This record gives sequence, C-alpha cells and structure tokens, in this order.
Amino acid sequence: MKHITVFGAGLVGSLLAIYLKQRGYRVTVCERRADPRRAGVVGGRSINLALSDRGWRALEGVGMAEQIREIALPMRGRMIHDLDGRQALQPYGTTGQCIYSVSRALLNEKLLDLAEQEGAELRFNERCLDVNFEQPTATLVSPGHPAAYTLETDFIFGADGAFSAVRSSLQKTDRFDYEQSYLAHGYKELSIPPTADGQWRLDNGALHIWPRHSFMLIALPNLDGSFTCTLFLPFDEFDKLDSPDRVAAFFQEHFPDVVPLMPDLQEEFVQNPTSSMVTVRCHPWVRGNVALIGDAAHALVPFYGQGMNAGFEDCRVLNELMVAHPDDWPHFLEQYQRQRKPNADAIAQLALQNFVEMRDRVVDPQFQLRKKIEAQLHQQYPDEWVPLYTMVTFSHRPYAEALRLGRKQDDVMKQLLREPDLEARWDHPETLEKAMRLFR
Amino acid sequence: MKHITVFGAGLVGSLLAIYLKQRGYRVTVCERRADPRRAGVVGGRSINLALSDRGWRALEGVGMAEQIREIALPMRGRMIHDLDGRQALQPYGTTGQCIYSVSRALLNEKLLDLAEQEGAELRFNERCLDVNFEQPTATLVSPGHPAAYTLETDFIFGADGAFSAVRSSLQKTDRFDYEQSYLAHGYKELSIPPTADGQWRLDNGALHIWPRHSFMLIALPNLDGSFTCTLFLPFDEFDKLDSPDRVAAFFQEHFPDVVPLMPDLQEEFVQNPTSSMVTVRCHPWVRGNVALIGDAAHALVPFYGQGMNAGFEDCRVLNELMVAHPDDWPHFLEQYQRQRKPNADAIAQLALQNFVEMRDRVVDPQFQLRKKIEAQLHQQYPDEWVPLYTMVTFSHRPYAEALRLGRKQDDVMKQLLREPDLEARWDHPETLEKAMRLFR
Repeated sequence: MKHITVFGAGLVGSLLAIYLKQRGYRVTVCERRADPRRAGVVGGRSINLALSDRGWRALEGVGMAEQIREIALPMRGRMIHDLDGRQALQPYGTTGQCIYSVSRALLNEKLLDLAEQEGAELRFNERCLDVNFEQPTATLVSPGHPAAYTLETDFIFGADGAFSAVRSSLQKTDRFDYEQSYLAHGYKELSIPPTADGQWRLDNGALHIWPRHSFMLIALPNLDGSFTCTLFLPFDEFDKLDSPDRVAAFFQEHFPDVVPLMPDLQEEFVQNPTSSMVTVRCHPWVRGNVALIGDAAHALVPFYGQGMNAGFEDCRVLNELMVAHPDDWPHFLEQYQRQRKPNADAIAQLALQNFVEMRDRVVDPQFQLRKKIEAQLHQQYPDEWVPLYTMVTFSHRPYAEALRLGRKQDDVMKQLLREPDLEARWDHPETLEKAMRLFR
Repeated sequence: MKHITVFGAGLVGSLLAIYLKQRGYRVTVCERRADPRRAGVVGGRSINLALSDRGWRALEGVGMAEQIREIALPMRGRMIHDLDGRQALQPYGTTGQCIYSVSRALLNEKLLDLAEQEGAELRFNERCLDVNFEQPTATLVSPGHPAAYTLETDFIFGADGAFSAVRSSLQKTDRFDYEQSYLAHGYKELSIPPTADGQWRLDNGALHIWPRHSFMLIALPNLDGSFTCTLFLPFDEFDKLDSPDRVAAFFQEHFPDVVPLMPDLQEEFVQNPTSSMVTVRCHPWVRGNVALIGDAAHALVPFYGQGMNAGFEDCRVLNELMVAHPDDWPHFLEQYQRQRKPNADAIAQLALQNFVEMRDRVVDPQFQLRKKIEAQLHQQYPDEWVPLYTMVTFSHRPYAEALRLGRKQDDVMKQLLREPDLEARWDHPETLEKAMRLFR
C-alpha cells in the first residue's frame, strides 16, 4: 500500500489526509506548527472564513458537513454601511442562498480530529527543508531529531499554504513557472465584542461592509456574539496611522458608527500586525512524485471568499479522479492538474476583481441597478442567466467557465446601462428580453 | 569609506565592481564559481553575445571599449538561409551600424583583470546562502571556511544572474513581487569549425539565421574562424531527437546546407545539454541595503541580443546617478530603480516578441516589405522615424519608450500594408508621407 506524505495540517492538508485515508492509503501529515488542538496554541492566519457551496460539497464527501453546519453562521447578503450609519442589505442570492461564517480554528480542529480517527499519522513541529521529487524524499527538522532527517515516502503532497516549502523546492527545478504578486493594500484584524449578555451588536446574518472606495472595513459574525473585523487599507495609509489618536480620528472620520462598537480599537490597532496579501500562480503542480494543492498551488487574495473553497474543491476533484482511476497515479494526477490549473487562475483573477467591487462599486447606483436587473433575469431565466457571484459561490461550475460567462454578462450589461432611461424601465419585459438577446 | 560587496563576478558584476572602484568605494566581489582566468576552468553559459551601442557606452565609461573592439567581430545584418541554401542579407541598420559578436569568456576575463587592477578584491568559490537586507550581512560557504561564515559589509549588490541567490533571499521577505516564466522552447549549442587554413565557412560579417517558423538555428562568428551555433526548438521536439540517426535526419531535412559544415554534429548534439530560457521579473530591486542589477533583476530571453547590454546599461545609469548625487545612496538607488525597472520590463517583452520575428516573420514577404519601407522612412525622416530594432540596438533611448514608439509604428504599418497595390509604390513620396501623417 502506497505511503503518502502530506505537508501542512491546515484546512486543505487535513481534508486531503481524510480523503486519502478513505481511499485506503497510508498517510502521514507533517506540520511545521504545533498541534492547534493543544491548549495555549496560537493559530496562524485568522482572516475570516466564508464557507460556500464548493466547500460544503467537499466536506460532504468526507461526511463532515452536518457537524460543521452546527458551528457555521449563515450570512444572506452584504450589509452596506454608509457614512451616516445607514445600513442596506444586498442579498448574495435568492432566498436561502447563504455563505457561512466559520471559525478557522474550530474547523481545522475538527478536520484534524477526523483525520486522526481515520488513521492518518499526524506529526507536528516538523519543518520541511527540502523535497526531492524523483525519489521521493523530504528533508525535515523536528524537535525529536538532533539534526535534519530524511523521510522516505511514495508520494508527497504540498498542502503547506501560500508560502509552501514544498513549492520552494520545486521552484528551484528547471522549467517551473512561478509568480508571487502582492497587493499595495494590507489588512489588520480588529474586533467587535458581544454585548454584556452575549449578543451580537450588529445583524449576525450578514457580512458587514463599510466601503470607502480606496479602502474598506468588513465584519463577520462569530458564534460567541463577537464580530471579527478586517480593515483593508493601502500600506502607505497604514503607515500614517502611527498613533492611537490618529487611529481614533481615522475611524471617527470614516467609520463613525463602528467606533462605539469597538471599545478596544486603539489597543488592538497597535497590537495586531498589518499583514500583506499575495496571489501565487505556478506551473506545473505535479512534478514526479510531488503535487501541490490548495494555497500552495494557488494562493488567492481573500475578496471572493473562495480561498478555502477552492482548496477544498481541489481535494474533492482529486478524490473523484482517484475513485474513477483507482491507483492510476500518473493518469489522475495529470487530470487533476489539467482540470484545476485553469480554474485556479480564474478564481485568482476573480478574487482580485472583487476587491474593487467590495470597496468601491457596491455603492455605485449603476452597480446596484445592474444587480437588480441581474436578479430579475436570473428569476426569469434561472438556467440561462446566472449572475457571476452566484456561479462562483452557489454552484460547482468550473471557475474558468464562470469567469468567461461573467465577462459576457459584463458586455451585455454595459450595453444595457448605456440606455438613457433604463432606471424607469429596468424590469420591463422588453429590457430583459433585450439582455437575453445580447447574451445569447 | 563605504565597503560594497558585489555577488557575482560575471559580466555585470565585474563591470559594476570597476564602476564602484572608480567612484572610490572599497569593493569585494564574491563569486560562486572558480576564477575563469585560471587554466582548465569551464565557463558557465556560453550562448553567444552580441554587443551593441548600450553595451559599448557602458564599456566606454570605464575606458575599456577600445580594448574590447579588438576582440569583437562586427555583424552588419541577418543572413537568412532558406531550405535551398540560398542566403539573403537583411541589414540591421544603415551602413556602418553593426552589432558585435564577442566571446563571453574573453570579455569576462578582461573585465575581471581591470576590476582587480582598480583594486577590487575578488573572491572565488564563495557561495552566498543568504543575505540580510537590514544589517546588511551575508552568509557564505567557501572552501577556506569549515562552516558557513558571515560577511559584514555596508551595501550588497546582487549581480549573480538569472538564478540569483541574493534575489532568493529577498523573495522570502514580505511584499516582494516575483515572476519566473519559462519558454516552451529549449536551446542547444553546436559549432561550425574553421576550415583547415583557419578561415570561416560562412560570411563572418553577419549573424546567420535558419528560420523555420516554429524553430530556428542561428550562428555567430568567433575570432578563431569557427561559428557558435544555437538550435532553438520546442522541448518536446528535442525529446524526439533521441538518437544520432534522428539528429542527422532532422538536420538533413531542415538545415541541409549546414550538415557539411558540422562534422561533429551528432556527437555535439548528444554531449551538449538542452537548456531552458527564462524571463524573470521582480520588484523592488532595492530593499534596505541590498540592490539587484543585471540578470538578477531582470533575466531576459536572448532573442534581442540585449541581456548583457541591458545589464551594462544598468551599471552605466547607476554610475551616472552616483556621479550626480555623490554618496546620497537612498536618493540614487531610488532613481536607479525608478528609471531602470520600466525599461527592464520593456526589453523583457521585446525579447519575447523578437523570437517570433527571428524564427518566423523574417521570411514573410510582408515583413520584408515593411522593413524596406521603414528603412526608407528612416532615411528621409532620420529623427522622426527610427525603426524599433534601431532604437533598441543603435540608440540609448529608454527601452520603454522604444516599446511604446514601436507599437505606434506597428499600427501605422498595419494600416499601410492593408493597401492592395503597396508593393508597386512602397517608395513613392505619397506612401511615405501617408505613413508619417499616420505616425504623427
């Protein structure tokens, strides 16, 4: 029986380990960090997670969806906060279509528990220095070994995230295309604590956005009544907020309705790091006996809420290919790369685009009108006109196809929105028919 | 007096060391390889070099141009070889405008000699493991030290080529944008030896090209009567040439006039490696007390013959900025990056484009007509219409500007070439005037 080593015990690594065990392989997971299930361990990235249909289907594949639903909070739309504190909901889809706020830490712990139950060996505090894609072997350092040691295995998955050590090794081999591209914006996490009686201070059924054109604040609900907030701001603007007074003044000016909800704002602002956001593209994902998956293969910026969902879909698709071609590793790995690489490129691009939508376009009346027309089109032609957000979030259509159709929709809508009196007759049958004519 | 450490004693590293010495700094050059001036040392890459105006000016800046002219062979144009062995010259520019074939090894040795004469300390067999851009320090391994040792210095230049170790260190720091992108084509070096009496078997005043659409062979003259040839071919086609018979048949089919000139073809084909070609883009080039220069900052594919010229121009521009702002490192480094980065991006793109031109477009009658018209325009409007190749090769106009003007010329020529009977009246005054009208 093949022995598979998975580097990374994050969300994708632990889900992959479960799938591999269920396919009958021997599995070892090596993780650089400590076991997050042990008390006192501080997690890595905590930027909010939003589970959507692709993520759910992958969890269903290992029988975990029900268990996770219990710790997930449905968000039915974007709640837009204007400067005067007014709130307006923009639904994500039709009734019942929600994305789900989930704690990264809790989800990871549950995935690790199941991986262990299924018989995967979990090793923590083991850092990968190098992999050899031909042997395959990996060189690791761990507290248990005085010097670096070599691990022999039959196949290696790099599920070790945006700064993957496995990928770093591949990058040094010939003809490995690689790109890492950072945003000029950084982010900082802040929080809105619960009320004294443990309640949420904002609607807990929405993703809150304070769009301010070149920057924004967002908030996602947590189970305990708190919200995790994230401020996205250009790095050079962060640099200017170098004193508690300046921070307070900045929030008072741009997010006045949030100030009373954030008693620890100034302290948190100083204490929490300002982090960067990177898009990583590479090719090939499979070389010899090594493959990349999740963020290690395609790190995304967080603005479409699809990073984890795309990584989970990698696992789900890989599993289906393993089921369809049992033990034919060369074949299903080739299929895996061929299917997933263009989709990863597409969602990377969509995630970059959606940043502009979230911080800027959502407050544009033209954009809002478009959203209304698209919702109407979707209602009348549910199979033909599926809004881009819906395709990405509430379907399993390949991302690349969603991107392509989304561009076509863009063209149609641009033409439509040029008409002078559209506002008055946006929902007339002839308007909708014209859109469909242009679209077809 | 500041102590500057330059990593890499290749063409750019050694020229930079000379410039820095001439500015009065203390300079140490650390090179991973052995001293190429010592007998028996086999050099690294030997792909042919073509020195053009930008390279010459940078050599003039250190007083070396005359010395190098003595070992350089002028090439006045491309000699196109068709399948029937017919040769046709396409001049590069006007009379007297040549590019120069130079031996990489000889040029490098002369640069190292001068660097040493000027007082730079040269250390060979020293491999950079890591640099710290804040201190700045570098960790190195060398035969003289039992373990890795730390070098302290005031400033570090990474002139260590396309696979720069200095850049690898920067790549691990936050917000460093990086891209490496390989061609699907590989290359293999071959040779045409001199005749028995030491003469060239082909015109030694031209760069020879056998353009075959999806692939090509080129040959550049050497001082000793030989030619260094390079076959550029997709990797999967290289894979098919897996026996001496197949190699012979391939050359007989596609380059029949070359076969009698290459007595060692089959042997060389098997012995010489098939190498890859990469474009590297990154940003920033300057971080703290570390800067990148030459291929380490911007590796190009070789098809415009500008890799070395661009790296030399980096040195020339940096030197001018050092002269203009003596010892104001933050200022001249910022200027260096601001001026050079867009130009490096432009020449990287031009180099990729020129591959298609060399292997495919040169045999297109439309392309040849365009070249004739452009030569005529350049003759009549020498300051206004400068062909793209001329701007890149025979001028010091920033590459980014050449790229921009080249695109405009493309548009004009596309419009002109659409006219049905252009062939008959391409040099009529009204045709040329029309081109200029469209261009202006």
